[in-house]
Amino acid sequence: MKSRFLKQVRQQNPLVHNITNIVAANFAANGLLAIGASPLMSNSIEEMEEIARFSQVLVINIGTLLGNDVEAMLLAGKTANKVGIPVVLDPVAVGATQFRRETVKRLLNEIKFTLIRGNAGEIAALAGVQWEAKGVDAGSGQGDVAALAKKAAHDYRCIVALSGEIDVISDGSQVVKIANGTPMFPKITASGCLLGAICGAFLAVAKSDNYFDATLEACATYAIAGERAAASLNPTEFGQFEVGLLDNLGGISPEMIEQYARITYA
Amino acid sequence: MKSRFLKQVRQQNPLVHNITNIVAANFAANGLLAIGASPLMSNSIEEMEEIARFSQVLVINIGTLLGNDVEAMLLAGKTANKVGIPVVLDPVAVGATQFRRETVKRLLNEIKFTLIRGNAGEIAALAGVQWEAKGVDAGSGQGDVAALAKKAAHDYRCIVALSGEIDVISDGSQVVKIANGTPMFPKITASGCLLGAICGAFLAVAKSDNYFDATLEACATYAIAGERAAASLNPTEFGQFEVGLLDNLGGISPEMIEQYARITYA
Amino acid sequence: MKSRFLKQVRQQNPLVHNITNIVAANFAANGLLAIGASPLMSNSIEEMEEIARFSQVLVINIGTLLGNDVEAMLLAGKTANKVGIPVVLDPVAVGATQFRRETVKRLLNEIKFTLIRGNAGEIAALAGVQWEAKGVDAGSGQGDVAALAKKAAHDYRCIVALSGEIDVISDGSQVVKIANGTPMFPKITASGCLLGAICGAFLAVAKSDNYFDATLEACATYAIAGERAAASLNPTEFGQFEVGLLDNLGGISPEMIEQYARITYA
Repeated sequence: MKSRFLKQVRQQNPLVHNITNIVAANFAANGLLAIGASPLMSNSIEEMEEIARFSQVLVINIGTLLGNDVEAMLLAGKTANKVGIPVVLDPVAVGATQFRRETVKRLLNEIKFTLIRGNAGEIAALAGVQWEAKGVDAGSGQGDVAALAKKAAHDYRCIVALSGEIDVISDGSQVVKIANGTPMFPKITASGCLLGAICGAFLAVAKSDNYFDATLEACATYAIAGERAAASLNPTEFGQFEVGLLDNLGGISPEMIEQYARITYA
Repeated sequence: MKSRFLKQVRQQNPLVHNITNIVAANFAANGLLAIGASPLMSNSIEEMEEIARFSQVLVINIGTLLGNDVEAMLLAGKTANKVGIPVVLDPVAVGATQFRRETVKRLLNEIKFTLIRGNAGEIAALAGVQWEAKGVDAGSGQGDVAALAKKAAHDYRCIVALSGEIDVISDGSQVVKIANGTPMFPKITASGCLLGAICGAFLAVAKSDNYFDATLEACATYAIAGERAAASLNPTEFGQFEVGLLDNLGGISPEMIEQYARITYA
Repeated sequence: MKSRFLKQVRQQNPLVHNITNIVAANFAANGLLAIGASPLMSNSIEEMEEIARFSQVLVINIGTLLGNDVEAMLLAGKTANKVGIPVVLDPVAVGATQFRRETVKRLLNEIKFTLIRGNAGEIAALAGVQWEAKGVDAGSGQGDVAALAKKAAHDYRCIVALSGEIDVISDGSQVVKIANGTPMFPKITASGCLLGAICGAFLAVAKSDNYFDATLEACATYAIAGERAAASLNPTEFGQFEVGLLDNLGGISPEMIEQYARITYA
């Protein structure tokens, strides 16, 4: 694949507004800085409208959702829609509780999302497909992840990035698979949350007719950075993997993406 | 000692529900993943009952307690008691303020805890014993930690794991000491919080008549992982210690526990 | 320069009360532990008065400010003033939104601060000087940072530590510059927040007529620790930089400060 967006992220340092959780906040901010973006983490309803007006993208993550976050998310999302910046949804563990299901339903009803990024269990919950999920983890469903991503993208009329051993990106018609990555990703917390944020950074520098390609490049970039971080490690060195992932997000180049990406267009 | 629970943690990946704090959330989740458990961090009262019903253990940590967390803790704890999963209390800095003392008193009155894990200062505060504590730190009391753990376990009719240079585990009659560990533990934040969470993971895979042994193995596992992480480091390399602790939690095996544990049955 | 305070931080382990944010909480606590202080992170209004009474310093950081944090900050700050401990303000992204501007205005009106620590964009916002800031980042204004720090210190009658490529410390009359540091600092999140907390630790062990020198030594210590952490790294190894910064905060000695500090008295 041709890398078209990483360089722009590094040049433009887009401001990524994250409404996020106490587990991911630090790691997502560091990952965004490493890739070249400028993170702003805020859940304060008092400043949601104003932040949407000077940000280049909004990323809503429901990881450790509290009741009073929901109104802030809605206000930020609606304002982002109004000013025309892309909006990403990371529906962490959406299938796990009624509170999460209802919150995400409300978000999906009232905000127009550019991209939903989740693991198979989360995307299945959104698509109304049976899946064996477990808490915040993807679970071990053996279904057809490509069909799952395509259905969810079709249902919600947005791009879906389903992350896992194979990442699948779909807009409801196209389906693209990325075979890069490492089994170490799900062994560090918030690795999915950070990917959602990085997708946001790539969307921030893309024009709306390139959102699919920007998402694809974001997912490939992240998967390759993880793959390279894991390459020199013992498979249980999870602490070093977290450090190495940030190092590799900092060091990855357009040339590496073009050289290492293993993409399949279905 | 014989290792009986680590292997089960790795096989069953128990879901550990943590009501925790903004300092420990990320690190505790990563430590739980490294040891083989599946972390879920949530303080939302809206989902406390539901999460208790599909989790294997609940860990309540009052590290950065806010007023509205208390009701969530009570609801989660009572539901956990109802469904019969073990409940761990980490009474961070309980002696430091009236708010913490009163909150912990209420938690102890209304929830049946399986295990209380704390440092000497915290356990002393619970046991009504004089101790020189300092903020969230253990303090430098020179009292008899074995007697302290035994008294608190007797008073609250649960297991007490008192962490420090020597860990002491008691159920009010038995007292066991673990001599593993490193002075680097108290030099990284949330190292006690993570131990509380790891105890939760071990309790989650144990039957109720094995809770004492599961706690003992959890504490030994953690202390040995820290000892091994520190072994190759300069004593002030605290950043690398945090990374190495996660690596060693990932890499520790039942054989290592059996080989390195320094346990004394009193 | 002569190091006079680091040794005291290591000997006295001052208790630093931080009202802080979900991005910085863990990292700031680890940095404080590494330098030798004792961190306590709490935003709970219920314990603000009590904590102020046994802490040696208060650090207020508005990084991920929520509406109900403001009253806690005011109560803690006023109590700190009453008992006579120093108070540090870290006005994160103060220029970015009206909510932040108004909150900081209220804090500055009702609390007497010993020190304001911020980047050029933040100090410019306080001083009412035009500056090109961006979200939580310093921005790229090319103004005279020494004049900026001096004006803000004069306006608010406190010490101002303006962090950047060159750090500038002023009390409204004196202006001192520190040329140590590394471009990697702004590439890890909460590196400014941690500096604010470390300034707190140094103020905690100083007498009030030494607050300026304590701030200067804190900033030099931190800049040198970062400089040394970066020295052995590739300039994009941001993960390792974060780890190495903690290692170097742990390992830095008064002799290193005296040897490496590049201070200019204006």
